[in-house]
Amino acid sequence: MMKIQPASTHQKGKVVKNLTLSALALSISAPALAIECETPSGVPQHHLLAANSDTVHWGYFSKEVEPQIAVQSGDFVTIETLTHHANDDASRMIEGDAGAESVFKWEKGDKGVNRRGAGPVDASILGRGAGEGFGVHVLTGPIYVCGAEPGDILEVKILDMTPRPSQNPEYAGKTFGSNAAAWWGFHYNDLIEEPKPREVITIYEMDATGATNWAQAVYKYNWVPQTDPDGVLHETIDYPGVPVDHSTIEKDMNVLEGVRIPVRPHFGTMGVAPAEADFVDTVPPGYFGGNIDNWRIGKGGTMYYPIAVEGALLSAGDPHAAQGDSELAGTAIETSYTGVVQVILHKKDELADTVMEGLDFPLLETDSEYVVHGFSYANYLEELGESAQSDIYSQSSIDKAMRDAFRKMRTFLMTTKGLSEDEAISLMSVAADFGVTQVVDGNWGVHGVIEKGIFPAK
Amino acid sequence: MMKIQPASTHQKGKVVKNLTLSALALSISAPALAIECETPSGVPQHHLLAANSDTVHWGYFSKEVEPQIAVQSGDFVTIETLTHHANDDASRMIEGDAGAESVFKWEKGDKGVNRRGAGPVDASILGRGAGEGFGVHVLTGPIYVCGAEPGDILEVKILDMTPRPSQNPEYAGKTFGSNAAAWWGFHYNDLIEEPKPREVITIYEMDATGATNWAQAVYKYNWVPQTDPDGVLHETIDYPGVPVDHSTIEKDMNVLEGVRIPVRPHFGTMGVAPAEADFVDTVPPGYFGGNIDNWRIGKGGTMYYPIAVEGALLSAGDPHAAQGDSELAGTAIETSYTGVVQVILHKKDELADTVMEGLDFPLLETDSEYVVHGFSYANYLEELGESAQSDIYSQSSIDKAMRDAFRKMRTFLMTTKGLSEDEAISLMSVAADFGVTQVVDGNWGVHGVIEKGIFPAK
Repeated sequence: MMKIQPASTHQKGKVVKNLTLSALALSISAPALAIECETPSGVPQHHLLAANSDTVHWGYFSKEVEPQIAVQSGDFVTIETLTHHANDDASRMIEGDAGAESVFKWEKGDKGVNRRGAGPVDASILGRGAGEGFGVHVLTGPIYVCGAEPGDILEVKILDMTPRPSQNPEYAGKTFGSNAAAWWGFHYNDLIEEPKPREVITIYEMDATGATNWAQAVYKYNWVPQTDPDGVLHETIDYPGVPVDHSTIEKDMNVLEGVRIPVRPHFGTMGVAPAEADFVDTVPPGYFGGNIDNWRIGKGGTMYYPIAVEGALLSAGDPHAAQGDSELAGTAIETSYTGVVQVILHKKDELADTVMEGLDFPLLETDSEYVVHGFSYANYLEELGESAQSDIYSQSSIDKAMRDAFRKMRTFLMTTKGLSEDEAISLMSVAADFGVTQVVDGNWGVHGVIEKGIFPAK
Repeated sequence: MMKIQPASTHQKGKVVKNLTLSALALSISAPALAIECETPSGVPQHHLLAANSDTVHWGYFSKEVEPQIAVQSGDFVTIETLTHHANDDASRMIEGDAGAESVFKWEKGDKGVNRRGAGPVDASILGRGAGEGFGVHVLTGPIYVCGAEPGDILEVKILDMTPRPSQNPEYAGKTFGSNAAAWWGFHYNDLIEEPKPREVITIYEMDATGATNWAQAVYKYNWVPQTDPDGVLHETIDYPGVPVDHSTIEKDMNVLEGVRIPVRPHFGTMGVAPAEADFVDTVPPGYFGGNIDNWRIGKGGTMYYPIAVEGALLSAGDPHAAQGDSELAGTAIETSYTGVVQVILHKKDELADTVMEGLDFPLLETDSEYVVHGFSYANYLEELGESAQSDIYSQSSIDKAMRDAFRKMRTFLMTTKGLSEDEAISLMSVAADFGVTQVVDGNWGVHGVIEKGIFPAK
């Protein structure tokens, strides 16, 4: 296993060797992308993209965000990603970690990253803060893939994921994550015990060395209204990165005693920039990937994304130590991780007779399975029109996502395996497993899984 | 592996040793159960319950059906079960098999098993045939469990499942199954290719010795209207056991070439008699179990059923060689199997501090997991009132089933693991997997899976 140390200084994305980076300041108002692609050397390069206030964008995918690095097809990237829940326990998840400190910095009128979400920077809608929290995930990137054009497919191989150790000496050797049972959870209006409703944060810990493969709960607390450094009161978890004042909360240390949660490290959110809007809320997933929240998108997995804009603009974040299918209460064990990925560009005229032929959704390939991702709306940005980014939250259902997953699996089997419709349908009924990916991300998800080994070698 | 031979003669249920059987003729009009329970010997007995026209009931669960055998808690039963799709290819699945021949016998005015379904015997509603096909599964049993009363729990350990070999010498050493992509499938009104709509039967074959662990398709055909021996025309697959005249169909031998389907033998339908109605359609599953169609209910699995009537009245059928989560097209690889089960009665006052405490739904325990079964309606017979058995077909959704599965998993964790609601909800979000059991059985299903190994030893 590769050992990744978090950035020890506040650094921008850098290339380990053969730097192909244009050192750009993040400027979301930039009218055009200023990235430069050098002539490929023919030898894959390995880039380091650290996470800090300059290299992340918070709460949105955007074709307008300037890339942090440019890579050639075949290059490797070590990419640091930070959980947007780190401020649920800053002592364990931020303190002493220069990259995280730069991102989560928030003093009156001075945030390390101001805009959080696809909403207006002046917070004129709800007054929560810049970006309004319409989108919550800290994303590292984007990565500009040289030569990528709309219609191409971006393959992203996840070669490794390692937890980001706490930099607080008090917690040396440990990594922490937060699980929020929040107002957007499936359970929230269906509680038994008082007080109702309530939001609950549970902090989990793991061994940072990877010596154990499980997480255990440390303590939990009920969310109580928090006033952010700019004076805005957050009655609920309605804006990402609000510092939780631990003098205001009551910790319950008696939580899930002896229970060991199997870790399943994965990127909750990874994807390319959509074409339909300039700023797209990170919460609802779509054809471009994004917040799919499938725990299978971890080490050993390969994602295939349809590219919608020049350069693809790959970003990753929302790292999870563990999540169950459905992500029932709204979040996973939200934990900072560093990934190693390889990025491979497939041009549109080279897709025939591959698993990417005709692909118009994010496909996962693991060692043993293909996984198609269905959503309530395959492309909600297009299907729901002008008000798509708000309407999607009221129009989702698992039934619709199952319909989409069925259609995608059928097309996948017919296109890439040469089956007739009847063959595909019979095969699905007897051998494909459909599961509930998530019911908490606006555009709800159902995934369909088919084993690779059932097909004859071509 | 135990080798089970199908009944070589038309025999009733019998006990291999220490016979405790009351030899009863199946008489659905019997006003009372005539079963007799002998004094337990203290030594578990092993019974054989063969499948034939006397030992099966077709298309319904019923508290009015006379039991085939009576067993004591702890007894073992070898139970033969027949697929109701055997007549899709009688040559491979019925011919030469005396038990199956007795069940599927159908000459004008003379059926081996007349009533098929919970509907009226005179077929006065739709004229399809006795029972109207409101319920389709051939169930072997019921088994009367001595001492069982409402409020108790019946544990059924599935110790083995072996395929029923074809008795046609032409197919020696092989077992066959049928997959019907039928009008009740999730795909049916959402087809791409012509003709639309259409029903398609795909016949699969397996090695009957268990030497291989996969199935492969043999041929397929489109359903064409079939006239049954009583002169009723079946435009679609609307009545179970209609003999398919193979001179009327066109076989396509070019189907899923080289594709090997992993076998997952299981009982699609197993359960106890419900209390709410005298005759209950086998298709929608419920608190009593029934047609759950979860492929995990196979060898090594243990089911726990809430008992609703005296004697429990356990029946099993609808055996499947393989099925995917969702059972998308309406059926699995419907294949006759023989099971070996152990039946254990747990009295209501002995459930505290066990996984059965407070149990009001069918729970599955495997070597490594607990699996809760959610349905669109936890108890549709009660919730939907007088017209429940018809209304259930128009009111199902995966969203509702997910809600039910969430609530059941929460209760299960709180009751049997002593967790608070907040602990249960956090644990579910990070470690429980919810999947789509089936979207084709009227009362749609979502199952929730939690690993047993995560909990501390008590």
